[in-house]
Order: sequence, then C-alpha cells, then structure tokens
Amino acid sequence: MTAPPPAPSSGPSTPRRRGRPPRAGRTAADVPAARDRILDAARETFAAHGYDKASVRAIARRAEVDPALVHHYFGTKEQVFEAAVAKAAAPVLAGPSVLAEGDPREIGERMTRLFFSVWENPASREPLLAIIRSVVTHQTAARIFRQFITKNLVSRVAQRLPAPDIETRIELAVAQLVGVAMLRYVLRAEPLASAEAEDLIRRLSPVVQFHLAGGPPPLPPEH
Amino acid sequence: MTAPPPAPSSGPSTPRRRGRPPRAGRTAADVPAARDRILDAARETFAAHGYDKASVRAIARRAEVDPALVHHYFGTKEQVFEAAVAKAAAPVLAGPSVLAEGDPREIGERMTRLFFSVWENPASREPLLAIIRSVVTHQTAARIFRQFITKNLVSRVAQRLPAPDIETRIELAVAQLVGVAMLRYVLRAEPLASAEAEDLIRRLSPVVQFHLAGGPPPLPPEH
Repeated sequence: MTAPPPAPSSGPSTPRRRGRPPRAGRTAADVPAARDRILDAARETFAAHGYDKASVRAIARRAEVDPALVHHYFGTKEQVFEAAVAKAAAPVLAGPSVLAEGDPREIGERMTRLFFSVWENPASREPLLAIIRSVVTHQTAARIFRQFITKNLVSRVAQRLPAPDIETRIELAVAQLVGVAMLRYVLRAEPLASAEAEDLIRRLSPVVQFHLAGGPPPLPPEH
Repeated sequence: MTAPPPAPSSGPSTPRRRGRPPRAGRTAADVPAARDRILDAARETFAAHGYDKASVRAIARRAEVDPALVHHYFGTKEQVFEAAVAKAAAPVLAGPSVLAEGDPREIGERMTRLFFSVWENPASREPLLAIIRSVVTHQTAARIFRQFITKNLVSRVAQRLPAPDIETRIELAVAQLVGVAMLRYVLRAEPLASAEAEDLIRRLSPVVQFHLAGGPPPLPPEH
C-alpha cells in the first residue's frame, strides 16, 4: 500500500514534517501516510522487542508521531497488533476469491501458487516473517493472530467449499504450506531453501488438493 | 536421562564441589545430573531471553553451577545451544530406524505416528517448543538447529530411502508435520488443536507417504 501523492498545495517548498503533532501544512494525504507509518513501526517494534515488551509509546517514537495519534487510529496495543497483522496478511486475504474462481480440480494448485506469490516476494514476505516471530513467542499475539486468520481466512474459504470437516481440511492444507515457509524461509534448510518455486508448486499442489477437496489423488512426482 | 547409581568409591563422605552452591553430599552421580540441569537451564534461558541475550553466565546462574563448569562440559554458547537441541530432539532421532523397519508402504504412517508420539507428550513437546521459539527469532540459533537436523535426521533418513531427490522429499514431509505442530501446538487453531490425534494420523499418513515414497497415492479421507 503506497501513500497517495501529496495534494497539489504541498510541494517541495513546504517539506512535510511527518511526525509528532499535527502541524499546519498537513494535507489530507498525510492521514493514510501516518497510519501506514505507524503500522510499519508497530511491526518493527513487535519484531525487535517481542509482543510483551513493545509499548504504544515505543511504536509512536519509531513512527515519529505522538502516542495519542496511535491510540486515536487504532486503540489499544492489541488493536495495533491486529491492524499490523491485517496489513501483513492483506496479500493472503485474496485467497478466498482466488480459490472460488476456476476449475475446482485445480483449487490446490491455485492455493499453492497464491502462497508462493506472497512468500517469494520480499515485500510481502518480510512483514509476515515479523508477525510470525511475534506469534511464536507470545501467547497474546498468537491469540490475536489466530482469531484474525480464523475469521478472515479459514471461515471465508470454508463458506465456499462446503464439507462437514472443511475447516480441518483447510488447516491441514495451510499446515503443509506454513511448514514449507518455516523450512524454506525461516530455517533456510537445504535443499528446500534453494529449490525452484515451480518444482515445489508441482510437488505441493496435489497435497493441498487432497486436503481441500479429497481428490483427485496426487500422482507420484517424477524423479 | 536418569543418573546412574553412585560409584562405590565415592560416597557422601567425598563431596564434589561443583558450581555455585557446592553442597555437601554430592556424589559421582551428580555429573550427569549437573549436565542435565545445565541443559534444562540453557533451554529455559534461551526461551526466556532469546538466543542473543542468553549468556553462559545466566545459564550457569539458573543451573546453580559455576560458569566454568558450563564451559568445561559444553564449550561456547553455540555449543551449549547445540547440546540443548540434541537433548530436546532426542525422541525425534529415533526416526531413521523407525522408518527403516517394517513395510515400506507404511513408512508415511510410521513417521506420522512417531511425530505425534513426541508432540502429544508434554514432556517431549515443551523442550521442542522452547527450541522452536529460539530458532524462529534468532538466525544463529536457526543455523545451529538446521545443521543439527540436517546431519542427524535428514541425511540419516536419506541413506535409507535412496532416490535422487530424497532430501527434498523428506523436507516436504517434515514441512507437513512441522506445519501441523505450528497450528495445533503453537497457534492452537481450532478445530486442529482439539482434533483427535488418530484422526489426524489417518489424514496425514497418506501425504507423508506420498512425499517420502511417491506413492501409493492417498485415497480421499472419508468425511
């Protein structure tokens, strides 16, 4: 998400002082820029200090705004974290519609491709890695993340794939992909870390298809 | 690991003075006990403070021994961490022989059952969770863990399952199980967190079999 261009009235001659209190010379364009800056600062602060030790004050300091502005936009620390999760997960949230469109026999491949398109791009990968680090080490962060993913991803996908055990199936498919993310991007285990994404998509799509739709059964990958 | 009985020659009358509070009544049986205590303290210290901030001194303090004893047994901080990984991963290292014995068409089920036997037991789960938290948040810890797993697990399993791409296959199978551990035990996402282990073993074994051996292809799980 990029900030919209500044309004015509604020040119280089009126440098934008981004930060602390709202000053004269601010334009409407500053509001989304400040929100985004706070969310980026929040993600960095949670990643650097851990969820428990990150404070709204520290987030505000990193974003160069007044803590009151953080409270004004987001509310509590929990709500700041939830908004940071929502921003980092935005590319993933395309999932439900990507899955619904097209041949149901290729739903596994579509989900696997979506996963790699998000994780192979450093701009979308790094925010997710930062969130995962907070989630793994702090139970409150884990709870917020779990509620967000359940509400925005699992239950929305489940609506489109009716089956009595569909939520378990979706989570097992997600588990396969999350595990690959752990080994490839976090642990950087070889040969997985250096494998071609297309090779992995070919190997993983039948498994994701199997979990989501129960078939057709995967063919053995060629050696 | 339990301490062996004390050697006949060293009774309570010849106390060994090791570490911070050298107490009367220590015997030769204390050596493995002290090693174990240091490793438990190391795991707790790494989990509580993160890999970077945990020091040999802090580990020694928690184990109630002299820092010199930690250096004597293990060497550097990196080596202490590696030994803590080895202790936490010990139940998993039964893997290679479990996989080699029995019907090759059931290798996926054997690996999946081994995984659940380790993760469903809090005594073996908690040390692994502590290690995972360190690994996800610190690159040095990730490197040590990666080298340990590659040397002791992946390459040993690979020797028993000859195939040109066997290491990639093993890692994709491990990724499926690691992802389940993340969602079930770390994130505690429902319905996966409350699912019966036997139900999950039934759903996951065909996938692990597919990755490891390329077949037979999984049948769709019954609804």
